[in-house]
Amino acid sequence: MNKVEPRTLPGFMELLPQEQILFNQIKDKIQNTYEKFGFLPLNTPIIEDSKVILAKAGGETEKQIYRFSKGENDLSLRFDLTVPLAKYVAKNYGSLAFPFRRYQIGKVFRGEKPQKGRYRELYQCDIDIIGDGELSIINDAELPIVIYETFKELRFGEFTIYINNRKILNGLFEQLELSNMAPDILRIIDKIEKIGKEKVIKELTDLGIEKEKVSNIINFIEIEGTNDEKLKKLKELNFKNEVFAKGLEELEEVVKYIRIFGMPENNFKIELTIARGLDYYTGTVYETFLDEYKSLGSICSGGRYENLAEYYTDKKLPGVGISIGLTRLFYQLNEVNLIKSEKKSIADILVVSMTEDFKYVSKVANKFRQEGKKVQIYFENKKIKNQFKYADKLQIPYTVVIGDDEVKSNTYTIKNMETGEQETKSI
Amino acid sequence: MNKVEPRTLPGFMELLPQEQILFNQIKDKIQNTYEKFGFLPLNTPIIEDSKVILAKAGGETEKQIYRFSKGENDLSLRFDLTVPLAKYVAKNYGSLAFPFRRYQIGKVFRGEKPQKGRYRELYQCDIDIIGDGELSIINDAELPIVIYETFKELRFGEFTIYINNRKILNGLFEQLELSNMAPDILRIIDKIEKIGKEKVIKELTDLGIEKEKVSNIINFIEIEGTNDEKLKKLKELNFKNEVFAKGLEELEEVVKYIRIFGMPENNFKIELTIARGLDYYTGTVYETFLDEYKSLGSICSGGRYENLAEYYTDKKLPGVGISIGLTRLFYQLNEVNLIKSEKKSIADILVVSMTEDFKYVSKVANKFRQEGKKVQIYFENKKIKNQFKYADKLQIPYTVVIGDDEVKSNTYTIKNMETGEQETKSI
Repeated sequence: MNKVEPRTLPGFMELLPQEQILFNQIKDKIQNTYEKFGFLPLNTPIIEDSKVILAKAGGETEKQIYRFSKGENDLSLRFDLTVPLAKYVAKNYGSLAFPFRRYQIGKVFRGEKPQKGRYRELYQCDIDIIGDGELSIINDAELPIVIYETFKELRFGEFTIYINNRKILNGLFEQLELSNMAPDILRIIDKIEKIGKEKVIKELTDLGIEKEKVSNIINFIEIEGTNDEKLKKLKELNFKNEVFAKGLEELEEVVKYIRIFGMPENNFKIELTIARGLDYYTGTVYETFLDEYKSLGSICSGGRYENLAEYYTDKKLPGVGISIGLTRLFYQLNEVNLIKSEKKSIADILVVSMTEDFKYVSKVANKFRQEGKKVQIYFENKKIKNQFKYADKLQIPYTVVIGDDEVKSNTYTIKNMETGEQETKSI
Repeated sequence: MNKVEPRTLPGFMELLPQEQILFNQIKDKIQNTYEKFGFLPLNTPIIEDSKVILAKAGGETEKQIYRFSKGENDLSLRFDLTVPLAKYVAKNYGSLAFPFRRYQIGKVFRGEKPQKGRYRELYQCDIDIIGDGELSIINDAELPIVIYETFKELRFGEFTIYINNRKILNGLFEQLELSNMAPDILRIIDKIEKIGKEKVIKELTDLGIEKEKVSNIINFIEIEGTNDEKLKKLKELNFKNEVFAKGLEELEEVVKYIRIFGMPENNFKIELTIARGLDYYTGTVYETFLDEYKSLGSICSGGRYENLAEYYTDKKLPGVGISIGLTRLFYQLNEVNLIKSEKKSIADILVVSMTEDFKYVSKVANKFRQEGKKVQIYFENKKIKNQFKYADKLQIPYTVVIGDDEVKSNTYTIKNMETGEQETKSI
């Protein structure tokens, strides 16, 4: 028979079992932390009506969408978990209790050009809190706490949550009458660490911005110091702009509540240049960096938006959310060797036998299962040496050895596969 | 702005949060049981190369596949978890330890005509054990134990696992020189409970089968009694056919080990007419029925196959597997009101506050979180009555009430939302 090559497409993550166990441990920790804060699970379809998926899309995103037809249906695979959430809340508005707090951990699909660390099928781990008409600013301070608890649990090393408020930037640009150039300006000032202050000034000037305004922008992005010093300096700018003032007030509130909720001071930082590309963020924005691996980019981002579902409903639904791009993160962490695991096997014990008495073998296995252990019995008729090799290959930490002696004496021999220590015990 | 209708496509399950919690409880129990037996997790891509997906497909299945192109790629969504497993094992043969025991719980996609209880995007929960060249028959007896433990855990009521061996049927047809008519014959005898013996005889005769052979078939399917009586009667048929003899021997082995592993006699039953439609089953086959709801059809099926990955590799990879179609099962169980849940909320506690002192509120919430409880704090500035209503709507079992009195006295008031009982406790 002609064989088909058993290939997996480029841009699609498919892990060997031991890597998959690590991946799942991370995913489970994220989920457990989300649930610890009472977020509700959601599982929307992967395939949606293209009209729903494309309601808001445009530009690059739209080109990346997997869109196809089947019968008379124009279908698309979801490219994020926010659009399906918007649809869901608009659709089920009457059945939900607000604030609606949901998490969704699932795959999304983006037909990007595949390259190192970029995936076409990727896990996102999202939480959002949606208000009905309004939503307290305190929620904007709770999400950093959830991020903090999540990454503390994950133990990838020290991390910092960068916080800003879009209204501060928007107010600044409004005041300088540069709102229409905001995206370009943001793109340029984002490069300051890479290209230096002088080049930023040059590029801003090249955009046609007057000298005084360029110097205003530079003064703004050069605000440094502790979180409190930054807040103080922002006030001292004495900017007579309502949007700016509102943003500053919100940022102060968020910092206040983050502290009230007990986050250590070195785990969060006001970072005035963070804007998040997406148009729909209107207030608080977050990015999260590993202190030792800032080059990985933000590993958890999000923010506050004014209106989640405006494309589907007239209801005003403000929200705040964060997302972890788990597939990419897993790839990156592997690259820098940051993934630690407690355990690389599912089974705690492999029962290895040199007897025909499977009644006894199964009795011993069940004893351990009843104690909550995960137990595999080796059934193949192989030499004991091969059975141990199998346990080693699967990195199963313990074997329980049962031979005819053990059957006769109602015992079993338990062996620590790492140290080689073994002990015969009575059942 | 013109609004897009926030619709979910027909044939796609999208649950409200409380239903989703129930769904996840079932899914988690299945996964936990699979892991208890040491099965390894797998998570293959949803999108595969069409060549891979279509290597084996044909007929109805092929028509149902969601197939599309993106750029130069001819892509398909997986329609089951077996084809991706075959590809995976062929691809990673050198890296896997055999027997390779894996579970995969994930969505598959079938463009079926949507109808009540039929879904286009559905969860399958599969386990398979793959051998390298050979695989002990004892594995065929372990899978029913996994099914037994799973459905015992799920508490949907009494259930029976029906067991047969395809070789018994194949041997019978071979002996009667009716192998080419086997599918038609199986289809007809499958209806015996519905249409009765006389009609079955008539339909078989109409196929052109001689009277004596028809009566042989009828004798065979009329074998009744306990499992041991059936095995005895099968032997007494004294069929001089090798395939038949091999099937009978295997069935006896499977029954022997099922008993050795401790399954209660009333939870499994030899059922000689079970064939499972799929071509690739070659030995043991399983179906599982809820005793009180046989009409739901088999809720967990599977069997032994000779060669998992013959479309991708020359390696001989025999296996045995089972699958639970969770999405359909969840729908059906809901219909007959069989889903019991311990808990319909994620949060164990809603912290309700009538104070501005969120430092204290957060301290109390963290105390419970540290004890392993899932805790939501209500942040919105709403009357206490509305906060209780929110807890009720989310079916959160306890509220912790904190007012200024509690802050002053370092206490909190915990209220059982079902009984209304409340108690003030010192922190």
